[in-house]
Amino acid sequence: MSLVSVFFSEVLGTGLLLLLGVGVVANVLLTDSKGRGADWLLINFGWGLAVFVGVYAAYRSGAHLNPAVTVGLWASGADEYAPGVDITIGSTLVYFAGEFVGAFLGAVVAWLAYREHYAAHPDPGEILGTFSTGPAIRALPWNVVTELIGTFVLVYVILKFGNTPSQIGPLAVALLVVSIGASLGGPTGYAINPARDLGPRIAHAVLPIRGKGGSDWGYSWVPVVGPIVGAVLAGLLSRVF
Amino acid sequence: MSLVSVFFSEVLGTGLLLLLGVGVVANVLLTDSKGRGADWLLINFGWGLAVFVGVYAAYRSGAHLNPAVTVGLWASGADEYAPGVDITIGSTLVYFAGEFVGAFLGAVVAWLAYREHYAAHPDPGEILGTFSTGPAIRALPWNVVTELIGTFVLVYVILKFGNTPSQIGPLAVALLVVSIGASLGGPTGYAINPARDLGPRIAHAVLPIRGKGGSDWGYSWVPVVGPIVGAVLAGLLSRVF
Amino acid sequence: MSLVSVFFSEVLGTGLLLLLGVGVVANVLLTDSKGRGADWLLINFGWGLAVFVGVYAAYRSGAHLNPAVTVGLWASGADEYAPGVDITIGSTLVYFAGEFVGAFLGAVVAWLAYREHYAAHPDPGEILGTFSTGPAIRALPWNVVTELIGTFVLVYVILKFGNTPSQIGPLAVALLVVSIGASLGGPTGYAINPARDLGPRIAHAVLPIRGKGGSDWGYSWVPVVGPIVGAVLAGLLSRVF
Amino acid sequence: MSLVSVFFSEVLGTGLLLLLGVGVVANVLLTDSKGRGADWLLINFGWGLAVFVGVYAAYRSGAHLNPAVTVGLWASGADEYAPGVDITIGSTLVYFAGEFVGAFLGAVVAWLAYREHYAAHPDPGEILGTFSTGPAIRALPWNVVTELIGTFVLVYVILKFGNTPSQIGPLAVALLVVSIGASLGGPTGYAINPARDLGPRIAHAVLPIRGKGGSDWGYSWVPVVGPIVGAVLAGLLSRVF
Repeated sequence: MSLVSVFFSEVLGTGLLLLLGVGVVANVLLTDSKGRGADWLLINFGWGLAVFVGVYAAYRSGAHLNPAVTVGLWASGADEYAPGVDITIGSTLVYFAGEFVGAFLGAVVAWLAYREHYAAHPDPGEILGTFSTGPAIRALPWNVVTELIGTFVLVYVILKFGNTPSQIGPLAVALLVVSIGASLGGPTGYAINPARDLGPRIAHAVLPIRGKGGSDWGYSWVPVVGPIVGAVLAGLLSRVF
Repeated sequence: MSLVSVFFSEVLGTGLLLLLGVGVVANVLLTDSKGRGADWLLINFGWGLAVFVGVYAAYRSGAHLNPAVTVGLWASGADEYAPGVDITIGSTLVYFAGEFVGAFLGAVVAWLAYREHYAAHPDPGEILGTFSTGPAIRALPWNVVTELIGTFVLVYVILKFGNTPSQIGPLAVALLVVSIGASLGGPTGYAINPARDLGPRIAHAVLPIRGKGGSDWGYSWVPVVGPIVGAVLAGLLSRVF
Repeated sequence: MSLVSVFFSEVLGTGLLLLLGVGVVANVLLTDSKGRGADWLLINFGWGLAVFVGVYAAYRSGAHLNPAVTVGLWASGADEYAPGVDITIGSTLVYFAGEFVGAFLGAVVAWLAYREHYAAHPDPGEILGTFSTGPAIRALPWNVVTELIGTFVLVYVILKFGNTPSQIGPLAVALLVVSIGASLGGPTGYAINPARDLGPRIAHAVLPIRGKGGSDWGYSWVPVVGPIVGAVLAGLLSRVF
Repeated sequence: MSLVSVFFSEVLGTGLLLLLGVGVVANVLLTDSKGRGADWLLINFGWGLAVFVGVYAAYRSGAHLNPAVTVGLWASGADEYAPGVDITIGSTLVYFAGEFVGAFLGAVVAWLAYREHYAAHPDPGEILGTFSTGPAIRALPWNVVTELIGTFVLVYVILKFGNTPSQIGPLAVALLVVSIGASLGGPTGYAINPARDLGPRIAHAVLPIRGKGGSDWGYSWVPVVGPIVGAVLAGLLSRVF
């Protein structure tokens, strides 16, 4: 598989992941939306099913959809990123690019789908909350720990039981993500994926949303560092057992 | 497979889809119903499982159940609509007929199942809401955009990963529809299917429901045009990748 | 498979179905129970998963678990009730006996599991509601119609796509039952199974529950007649297509 | 498979089970957590998916994750605990050790993930409730009965349809646990697993949680005795049919 195909596959898969992921939070939070007021379970299932759809769409490139998965595969000493895709600095950067570009674009399309609801929504914090994650209790070192633990579970299970999300199967990855969200999402909203958080945060910063407020850049490194460290640990531990 | 069989298969499948789909909204909205007050998640799962049952029932004709799927297949340049069913103007019209007739009949049977609850319900807007979709914020161009995006996701994933809903499998299609509803259903109630909206709207117009109010024909073109445009785009894009 | 084995298999399967089915309603309704106040979705999933478990447990006898399924198979002109079990008056009565005895025993064990909560519960109507179904709006002919429609969907889909519940698979039957509950359960609480309603109603009548009130025998024929008629219609229609 | 591998496999699987299981209750109960106030359904699915993940992780050792499963296998007269693992006193003790150590460690990691929320939470009873189970109505003999019935269903279905949780499959075991929780969890919170209850209770006793209160040792024997008796009965009955 060519690196150009890898790029577009990851853009498409991560784009669908964020379109559907940002969408479900918008549905629950934004003014007048029909899902407004539904609870955490809808958000959990919505993100899990967003993974389900994204993994289908990016099947051929292994459906990383997440720099932490790419890094975890690298740390695990795997032979390839997907059937026919060697692990090199170049291919790693192509995965990263596809993941971040897809995440950005998916968030933009989600904003289009909910444009009138964003325009009507008065709370800047909730508007940001539809795009990126934030801590329930701001304590950055502990927020890093929570993200690290959640990503460790994600990447370790994927590495041990399928090597890539597409190999473990769309439904199994989706249920794994629902589980992590239900169980470990309480403190930080479970980014467990640097692209999932940073791509939409950039979209939030550049989109013309009325009364949107700041993008909380002071927190933005947490859902990058925690997941990367968790993924490296998962990759290394998967070599041991 | 003969076109007569295709017709009855799509009538049966789309009929079950609408019986169960109209039913779940009636269960949540209508006076004294046991599911009254349950939230968006029940409606999402109810529609997803309605697709699950409808795809089983219309398996042999490919289980389009949706003119947007039929149009998307045509636009994608597929070889056939289902095993043994060529793509012609005639077969296209047979699919459309089966889909709309089934949708109408399914809504009628759902009304029979909830007849006493319809008779007891005082709110004409909610009565219409059990039959067809409507916008949370009425802004027709943006409502078209939302329906277009949702249908694009539906048809693109189906085309790329199974060609027809029956080939991708009943459970995968059901989860895809739950995902679209959870994530993109907030602004317009996710028709993503012209037959799903227009068939029950006609049923609403002709059934003898006490105090039912108007059928909101001014909105009725939106869940036809948005899905058709989204499906054509999905079909064309599926040729590119 | 001997008829003695069929009997015990159906007792076990229907017993687990009712243990888990009565249990989930008791969990939601009874005083101080940890699931108290959860909504229709928990009840729907609880009953669906009760079917899942019951079908596993009665796999070898085809997992009818329901006289309507037995009657539907008979009306469909099927060759056998399960691999190696001919359709005769004798085997039909053995299935009925296993289904009703299992339903009665399952309800008794559910009462044991919730004994202290039954003892603490002050509302006789809700106590009966944990055992058997009742109409939201009492209009017996329409209640029959609702039960008929729901059972028709259940039996028709089972007959067309697997012949018996065990052949269509535990998960598919479970999701089918969740769907019928979510969509058609609002008016009557979806017995769709004479044994599921009558067995626990008899248990309610004979168990020593403090302040339990009457067993509403005036309604008890509805969840027998509606399902049987629906099943016969489904069986006959399955011959046509 | 060596007993050392069995030990680490069960530690890992039971550790993930408790990390995700304690996590979901913490998410619903603790101050400021994003899932706070979600209902029983989230807890049910959270525990079910925790089983799903744990069974994947401990696949090679049969994924007992539960001394009641180990005891049930022994009572059933099975040939081995997992492919290549004979049933001896030594291997039984290795399973027990892995299960209890894993349960303890999983609870500790869950506490790390929610550390700031534990520190902020004012209610000692709810803090304990995130770790171990407790009765809704304290009536110890009846609490034993409820735990016995729930564990009987768990172990009997596992033994008859797969021998070990890994053989019946991660998703089927997960749905079985969701079912037992939804239907039989109301009175005691469904430990149905001595390690699941005792391991985290010990963690609760030793962890430095501010204002945590007592560990309710007076109840701690119930979720040990009930499940063990239920498992032995299930094992013996599985020999009969």
